[in-house]
Amino acid sequence: MSAKSQSEIPDIVIGRLPLYLRALRRLQQEEKSVTSSHELGRRLDISSAQIRKDLSHFGGFGKQGTGYQIEYLIDQLQEVLQVNQEWMVAVVGAGNLGIAISHYRGFQDRGFRIANVFDVSPQKIGQRVGEFVVQPVSAIREIIRSEGIKIAMLAVPAEEAQSVADLLVEAGVQAILNYAPINIIVPADVQIQYIDPVTHLQHMTFYLDE
Amino acid sequence: MSAKSQSEIPDIVIGRLPLYLRALRRLQQEEKSVTSSHELGRRLDISSAQIRKDLSHFGGFGKQGTGYQIEYLIDQLQEVLQVNQEWMVAVVGAGNLGIAISHYRGFQDRGFRIANVFDVSPQKIGQRVGEFVVQPVSAIREIIRSEGIKIAMLAVPAEEAQSVADLLVEAGVQAILNYAPINIIVPADVQIQYIDPVTHLQHMTFYLDE
Repeated sequence: MSAKSQSEIPDIVIGRLPLYLRALRRLQQEEKSVTSSHELGRRLDISSAQIRKDLSHFGGFGKQGTGYQIEYLIDQLQEVLQVNQEWMVAVVGAGNLGIAISHYRGFQDRGFRIANVFDVSPQKIGQRVGEFVVQPVSAIREIIRSEGIKIAMLAVPAEEAQSVADLLVEAGVQAILNYAPINIIVPADVQIQYIDPVTHLQHMTFYLDE
Repeated sequence: MSAKSQSEIPDIVIGRLPLYLRALRRLQQEEKSVTSSHELGRRLDISSAQIRKDLSHFGGFGKQGTGYQIEYLIDQLQEVLQVNQEWMVAVVGAGNLGIAISHYRGFQDRGFRIANVFDVSPQKIGQRVGEFVVQPVSAIREIIRSEGIKIAMLAVPAEEAQSVADLLVEAGVQAILNYAPINIIVPADVQIQYIDPVTHLQHMTFYLDE
């Protein structure tokens, strides 16, 4: 396990930093240069006290009463999150979802660049998906190792997710974003996060009036 | 605000129930009929004590030492989450992401059915996306009201997300799953959840060794 995963900063705090970063960049696009925990809190529906407390883990970034310098805070958060560099990302699965991910322009300028798209299907291998030519899953180990890719996005059917994840980990991937609606098991030193729209929808229906 | 949003069950517990439901359905597919908090915990990387505590909010669903009847627990969780019915969902945005969502088969049997796909672009309106014909955003109010749709998924550019959300809320939508990478403001009685892959990736890069 890396030193950071044993750091004293709660993981839930780390999980909020990307939201702060996103909101700050939006403020910057609006040509603002200074903000406050109150303004950020209003935009994110998070209390200003929580935001100040979260940022205090990293030294605070602002002086009482003068607010936060947006550009400075963005730089600092990008450094903390290690996205002041560009990470290459492999996408596995060239179905509708993999295609949408491969075309998504929202990765640019946020620290990530899709580097490869893989699939198992002979009908898809060799086809173009946006700017990529789909590579065979059988080439994952060689390509991921030689290109030093550390991050992968999994857009394969649930039944294939675990075996593809095993392959990625063996090839040296250290972080997986899994879109398949199934929990997968990875070694403790590999990061895993999930995107499953149905879990979000089911969370919300709890609160709906029928 | 509905009675449930003032219920004493923490929202973070509600958020885990869809994960339990998903894991239970997977066990059912594996033709198991009984499980335990230990087995669920192992699959979900959540402690068995946490799972027992979460389920105890709803009466427990199991007897000490005998485990959980999978089918019964699935039924109960579906009832709690109100997904023992099928909710119609509107998709706004017929770009690559909206198309992927519209084709996604993972909503079936989990309580949701895509009912409409909307877009603003004259090039897209009237085109087929899977089984849907893209409707104009200008028809949102009329269609959502007449069909009684309560849930929408937003797959539009960040710049348009707030105005489309306003339109949806005005039309009677009570829950929005927003894929646009921007926080939006909705009335307190409207549920909002977000899917932004970059926030997950940035969360993981914090822990990566460079």
